[in-house]
Amino acid sequence: MSYAKQMLQANSQALEVEPSSLSEAIDAIDDCVQACIADVDYDLAEPNVNEMVECIRLCLNCADICGTTARVLSRQSGSDADLTKSLLMTCESISNLCGGECERHAHHEHCRICAEACRRCEKACRELASALV
Amino acid sequence: MSYAKQMLQANSQALEVEPSSLSEAIDAIDDCVQACIADVDYDLAEPNVNEMVECIRLCLNCADICGTTARVLSRQSGSDADLTKSLLMTCESISNLCGGECERHAHHEHCRICAEACRRCEKACRELASALV
Amino acid sequence: MSYAKQMLQANSQALEVEPSSLSEAIDAIDDCVQACIADVDYDLAEPNVNEMVECIRLCLNCADICGTTARVLSRQSGSDADLTKSLLMTCESISNLCGGECERHAHHEHCRICAEACRRCEKACRELASALV
Amino acid sequence: MSYAKQMLQANSQALEVEPSSLSEAIDAIDDCVQACIADVDYDLAEPNVNEMVECIRLCLNCADICGTTARVLSRQSGSDADLTKSLLMTCESISNLCGGECERHAHHEHCRICAEACRRCEKACRELASALV
Repeated sequence: MSYAKQMLQANSQALEVEPSSLSEAIDAIDDCVQACIADVDYDLAEPNVNEMVECIRLCLNCADICGTTARVLSRQSGSDADLTKSLLMTCESISNLCGGECERHAHHEHCRICAEACRRCEKACRELASALV
Repeated sequence: MSYAKQMLQANSQALEVEPSSLSEAIDAIDDCVQACIADVDYDLAEPNVNEMVECIRLCLNCADICGTTARVLSRQSGSDADLTKSLLMTCESISNLCGGECERHAHHEHCRICAEACRRCEKACRELASALV
Repeated sequence: MSYAKQMLQANSQALEVEPSSLSEAIDAIDDCVQACIADVDYDLAEPNVNEMVECIRLCLNCADICGTTARVLSRQSGSDADLTKSLLMTCESISNLCGGECERHAHHEHCRICAEACRRCEKACRELASALV
Repeated sequence: MSYAKQMLQANSQALEVEPSSLSEAIDAIDDCVQACIADVDYDLAEPNVNEMVECIRLCLNCADICGTTARVLSRQSGSDADLTKSLLMTCESISNLCGGECERHAHHEHCRICAEACRRCEKACRELASALV
């Protein structure tokens, strides 16, 4: 069980969403950070690095936007629903762009794994944004 | 002259906006990160820290969102205008919320300074978003 | 299986350490980021927030240092062993300080969980630093 | 005058170092983040990107380590001198590595500018570390 989940179960405050939806989203988004940071490094090690440039740029943006989104979601107790939604939609958008580019390079196992992480993140952002009233 | 400005002047690529508009926005956003991180620390040192809780939470979110926005703006060469706009609007929104809360505590010099940084950041995000077609 | 582990298993490059030691360290350090960010938010929601100030400051530093350490460790292919060691020792040190402070507040379930995450991170950093020649 | 400097002048607490030394270091380190993030993007746009791989990796590590160092330095009121020194030495080390690599590519104006930012950051870290008792 992730610390995000343990933390949310320990929390006695009123939340706007189900704790399990929130902790699953935080986990999916944090996992996407990890995958994107590593994918950049493997992309840089490919002999045809000039074909990987767009993938690297999108992974860099995706890692930063996802990292910030996970942090803001973890500060739930005084959160602003409009701000959270706006950030989730931005995060969904970059995960979609990055996942699509990684799928184009899925013959590289590291890009295939990263695409999977991006798609899971994209779905988690979309579902959490819908769950917020 | 900031490194963001020097870098953009050295850049021979086609940009969607005036280099000076972009570098001024990056500088204003990065300055806001610095002010928010420091303001949290001064808030925590106030005797009435329980009155500063909302200010601390907003400054934490503002620092993270601004930090990511500055990074994404600095990766201009392969940027996606819709994504950039979406992020700028989120950044404008948190700077507005954070600036407003800091103004409520402007009798603390550190909050007055942070409010000024947030308002400058908010304005820079709004202007850059409008300049993007 | 974490993406860090999947990524490292997919990697054909020579590594200085066992892939499983490295991926376990990255996971423990990333988990610590998640716990510290959330703990700050719960600390801020406590009625006696003025007693939580040192815990908040240490958690903020711990989250940032751990987050950067996980990123640098994920960029393994061209890494510098001395730099990695230096960063791991700094990360071990802040996890130790933060874990100790969280233990003092372990009657709060969120601090007990965060202390556990910090101690696991501290151990992972120490062990990985020793494994690096 | 940077917000770091304004903030430190507004601060009534006892500091372990001269406020101006601290704010100058924070500014130099934050400027280095900005230069490294931008340099990665320009490196990726070079036709001979495969010759820039080591520069990109070092700039990514340098941006992350500097960014965290600036944040920790800005949380001065409850700081631990040993931790601060350890982080400053790690930051000096990566700025030195990154500055050296950027100098090798100084025929690219963006690398020349980034090398200058790294060398200024390296010097600021070394001087601040010596000033800490």
